[in-house]
Amino acid sequence: MAQHTVKFDIAEEPIQVPTGTLVTEAAAQSSVEINQPCGGQGRCGRCAVKVTDGDVRRRSTLRLSTEDVAKGYALACQSVIESDSEIIVPPQEKIERRLTTDRTAAEVVVPEGYDPQQSQTIRRLHLNLMPPSMDDQTDDWSRLQTAARKQAGVTDLKTSLEMLRKIGGVVREGEWKVTAVLNAKTWDCPDCPAELLDIYPGHIPAATPLWGVAIDIGTTTVSLWLTDLLSGQVRAQVAEYNQQISRGEDVISRIIFASKDGGDEKMRGMVMGTINELLERACKRAKAKPGEIIKATISGNSTMMHLLLGIPASSIRLTPFVTVVNHIPSMFAQDMGLDIHPRGIVDCLPGVASYVGADISAGVLASGMDYSQEVILFMDVGTNGEIVLGSSDWLVTCACSAGPAFEGAGVLHGMRATKGAIEEVWINDETYDPSSRVIGGVKPRGLCGSGLISLLAEMFLTGVVDKRGSINTKLASPRVREGDHGSEYVIAWANETKHGEDIVITNVDVDNLLRAKAAIYAGFKVLAESVGVPLETVDQVLIGGSFGKYINVEKAVEIGLLPDVDWDRFQFLGNTSVRGAYLALIDHNLRRRISEIAARMTYIELSADNTFYDAFMSALFLPHTDMNLFPSVAAAMEK
Amino acid sequence: MAQHTVKFDIAEEPIQVPTGTLVTEAAAQSSVEINQPCGGQGRCGRCAVKVTDGDVRRRSTLRLSTEDVAKGYALACQSVIESDSEIIVPPQEKIERRLTTDRTAAEVVVPEGYDPQQSQTIRRLHLNLMPPSMDDQTDDWSRLQTAARKQAGVTDLKTSLEMLRKIGGVVREGEWKVTAVLNAKTWDCPDCPAELLDIYPGHIPAATPLWGVAIDIGTTTVSLWLTDLLSGQVRAQVAEYNQQISRGEDVISRIIFASKDGGDEKMRGMVMGTINELLERACKRAKAKPGEIIKATISGNSTMMHLLLGIPASSIRLTPFVTVVNHIPSMFAQDMGLDIHPRGIVDCLPGVASYVGADISAGVLASGMDYSQEVILFMDVGTNGEIVLGSSDWLVTCACSAGPAFEGAGVLHGMRATKGAIEEVWINDETYDPSSRVIGGVKPRGLCGSGLISLLAEMFLTGVVDKRGSINTKLASPRVREGDHGSEYVIAWANETKHGEDIVITNVDVDNLLRAKAAIYAGFKVLAESVGVPLETVDQVLIGGSFGKYINVEKAVEIGLLPDVDWDRFQFLGNTSVRGAYLALIDHNLRRRISEIAARMTYIELSADNTFYDAFMSALFLPHTDMNLFPSVAAAMEK
Repeated sequence: MAQHTVKFDIAEEPIQVPTGTLVTEAAAQSSVEINQPCGGQGRCGRCAVKVTDGDVRRRSTLRLSTEDVAKGYALACQSVIESDSEIIVPPQEKIERRLTTDRTAAEVVVPEGYDPQQSQTIRRLHLNLMPPSMDDQTDDWSRLQTAARKQAGVTDLKTSLEMLRKIGGVVREGEWKVTAVLNAKTWDCPDCPAELLDIYPGHIPAATPLWGVAIDIGTTTVSLWLTDLLSGQVRAQVAEYNQQISRGEDVISRIIFASKDGGDEKMRGMVMGTINELLERACKRAKAKPGEIIKATISGNSTMMHLLLGIPASSIRLTPFVTVVNHIPSMFAQDMGLDIHPRGIVDCLPGVASYVGADISAGVLASGMDYSQEVILFMDVGTNGEIVLGSSDWLVTCACSAGPAFEGAGVLHGMRATKGAIEEVWINDETYDPSSRVIGGVKPRGLCGSGLISLLAEMFLTGVVDKRGSINTKLASPRVREGDHGSEYVIAWANETKHGEDIVITNVDVDNLLRAKAAIYAGFKVLAESVGVPLETVDQVLIGGSFGKYINVEKAVEIGLLPDVDWDRFQFLGNTSVRGAYLALIDHNLRRRISEIAARMTYIELSADNTFYDAFMSALFLPHTDMNLFPSVAAAMEK
Repeated sequence: MAQHTVKFDIAEEPIQVPTGTLVTEAAAQSSVEINQPCGGQGRCGRCAVKVTDGDVRRRSTLRLSTEDVAKGYALACQSVIESDSEIIVPPQEKIERRLTTDRTAAEVVVPEGYDPQQSQTIRRLHLNLMPPSMDDQTDDWSRLQTAARKQAGVTDLKTSLEMLRKIGGVVREGEWKVTAVLNAKTWDCPDCPAELLDIYPGHIPAATPLWGVAIDIGTTTVSLWLTDLLSGQVRAQVAEYNQQISRGEDVISRIIFASKDGGDEKMRGMVMGTINELLERACKRAKAKPGEIIKATISGNSTMMHLLLGIPASSIRLTPFVTVVNHIPSMFAQDMGLDIHPRGIVDCLPGVASYVGADISAGVLASGMDYSQEVILFMDVGTNGEIVLGSSDWLVTCACSAGPAFEGAGVLHGMRATKGAIEEVWINDETYDPSSRVIGGVKPRGLCGSGLISLLAEMFLTGVVDKRGSINTKLASPRVREGDHGSEYVIAWANETKHGEDIVITNVDVDNLLRAKAAIYAGFKVLAESVGVPLETVDQVLIGGSFGKYINVEKAVEIGLLPDVDWDRFQFLGNTSVRGAYLALIDHNLRRRISEIAARMTYIELSADNTFYDAFMSALFLPHTDMNLFPSVAAAMEK
């Protein structure tokens, strides 16, 4: 049998192995440790290595994209040596990142050719005023207006009382040389005059950043990008849990809390507290001051937007489910209590309906689907699940009341995706023993959303649950047992966990997860059917939102949460809401596009739709009643 | 000698008198008391009677207009009986009023054909919104905008966060019938959208007033007219001293006080206090609430406007004397602290220069001179003296630093025109004893502006002072003596006064008054010469301002304060500043005209003008160096 020389980058010496040796075996001979969380079943993708010289035969490329394979990636447990090879074993951390975060557009690239003169509404001008004399007793403000007109082409300039109180001192301190910061236009009044926001003595150096901030208020997480409006560059990205979580996990419970006496002010205070803390943190990182931030663009779902602004949200919750306002007027920071420059322009992005908010309008912009020739399915699965289907020609949208099951709520050992959460599970199909990956590499405390999807898929594929989601109590494993909440499966024994108690999943949990995934899939179906586009013909599936960031698409398809289309058609976009807010912050043409998107989207109210109920009932199975919709899952089950 | 029957209306019986009997003598025979403050010299006009049957021969008609004579008025001390006559003796009070207030336009007449639909920017609309349903989930705010567009033709409507917080509740409480109050346009942004200012459930009855307020902030007095914007009617007129008086009589001392630490906030607080007190008083009278007032138009000189808004005013006082702002942007009441509706529109009228403020722009509007075919001289002598000369074709203006002498400041026994102030004086040309009229009919405490003018004129005409203003110490009267401040003339002995001290006028006082009147007259001259219009050819002299209200024109001409033109050409307009503010309040076309007036007026800075100095020096005489300029005074002196 032919022998081949194999050299692992982290091994001391090359070794000789016969043709057909598994890469994992060769690694073991080289004393190179390759992590195999799924036990070498080729399902987890965590043993990916990169072949830089020679080649290997890949029995399976599950979890690898076509591009990955083209770059030389192979699953060590599913690939055999057939030539002399050099193999790189990426650090585990890097693999994890590549499989999750790397697939999201984590880096912010300033749009090509960004020109603040063309795109930015905020302008910083160096003006030289004519000093007054006995022959020219024009007032200071007219003098400033004239300089702005003659030196910067600003034909019409207005200002506030605060500025009028200030300019007399500033123009004299600067000896009639000043730096003026103004807002050239607002989205809701294109014909309104430009507004002087602040003025400083002398000429501020051109390289000094002009700060703006893009904010996404998620039900769970608030994200903030501190941006230099002159270069378009993001200088600090920070995120934190929305303090409102302490008053309810989902929007409905928050609305109920806010409706109670004083609850609205408490809710408002909590999210403002979160934002102001993030502002401090981002500013510290970028060596800025919150008071220097002159523009904020805010995205978020309709409830979050109402609660942020102190607008009563109760009509969102009650039939016929209407918001008070979708297109919120541009306002000043001091009007709404944001701790940036008091005259900072605050632009809350427009939503479409009670359950399709600004986060989705912004997400569509960030995805680019409104300009796409292809048919795109965009989903944002955060605490709520919103879906948009469309292209440059049309856009339809709906909201699935999926509930927060995938955020860990309504599940006995569910938790949010923090340290100690099991985020991926593999079950051995002979022993029914699981192995898992825990965030932070510590003892587990519970299961987060991606962990639940992973677990449900593994339970289904290994027969721990049947297609109805019932736990198979006849299974020859001590892990299946009767508990306080009916049948359950033990993922971790008490001695393996942080809190010293078994971590289990119950039949009730599985039912909740089934209902959540069925609601989302039914949303896809209704949307697709409403425009006569078969789901399987969708050209791209774009996944945004914090949940989407960590989702394991293959497993999500296996449980019937996502439609069964080619892996290559899926793309993770990360937090599209904050990205859309960022784009609107730096470019007023993109800001206008968000308004157009919000106006263009046709909203389909699922609760008024009988076809939704039928689609939902059909989706209450693993993966679905109609297996023709999930050919890859059917194939995997046969195998 | 022919006998005639004379019947006085207030006499018991008619009497018989021979031809040539003075009316005052006939009155004495009838036991009818006719007041003769000037001692029957025909100078004070206080003995005017009305001849209703028969006629009298008038030796003099001084102080009577041609119209008065046509109506039958005659001076009792200067008219003789020549036929049977019936004579009405008007109550003294009525005479006083006719000679002062009656010549001012005290009644406010709503402009003919006033139509709030055409003229008023504030609109109150009854709107019926389409209720939402599962088939129409449009947000509340869009629903309101649609109703405003379809039912009232409001194509573009914006609003504030406060309103967005309120509308959800209001539309539901009113079961989708609401009353919306909106501002259709502002002077400084004609292309801006209309703004929703407030919204109420149900339909407010159309007859309910919609309140607005016109305010004039005088250096001495603040005046306020509470107005129903729907009918244009003024429902309450109130006035009160500006509390700032306690920190200085004139604008210069107020600016100095405001420049000191915290002084600006104190000044602002004091005038706000005055206004808010007046608002309370006016509202009580009209059964309104300050919070219901939705629009305020404010007039006042440039210093008053800066101090009201908390804008540093120090540049007004320092060369080259510029304001921070002349054309103040429209703002909301909550932005500047006025205690009306928080979203009430506050419109501070535009000024021209540091010493020609909004009060003058408003005054010109109220005078109508900017549309006049005739050449008009308009003056507003309050605490400051501003003059405008012009017609529909051109307008020139200047400010005379007359100082507050005519308000009683800088004069030993000067005081403001309140109870106890001597407001008119007559001196007997044989005894040099004065008689006088005191405001409130009490013992005198001092002399107010009109009293000082009157006194100076009498002293000059009777030779108590010479044309240089020096008191004739050789006069055979104990009233002329040397005092602590040089030569002085005693107007009232200690036993006749309130405070038990002599009331005197000193040579220093006279000098101060001469300088004040010379500054004003020099202003007239410079203005007239700047446009080549001889003063004597001016078609009308319009006098506005609180001082003008009580001025005795004839005496003012005698001392050379006013130009010597026919009595009929003078007209008192009262407080033209508040009247102009009222007109701007009710009619946005008139508001626009004020901006045009302010832009059109050519300001002439007197302190930079040598011709002013020459004119001033020539005017430091009684009435003037050039007696050709004062032919009527020359004639009176000859007599």
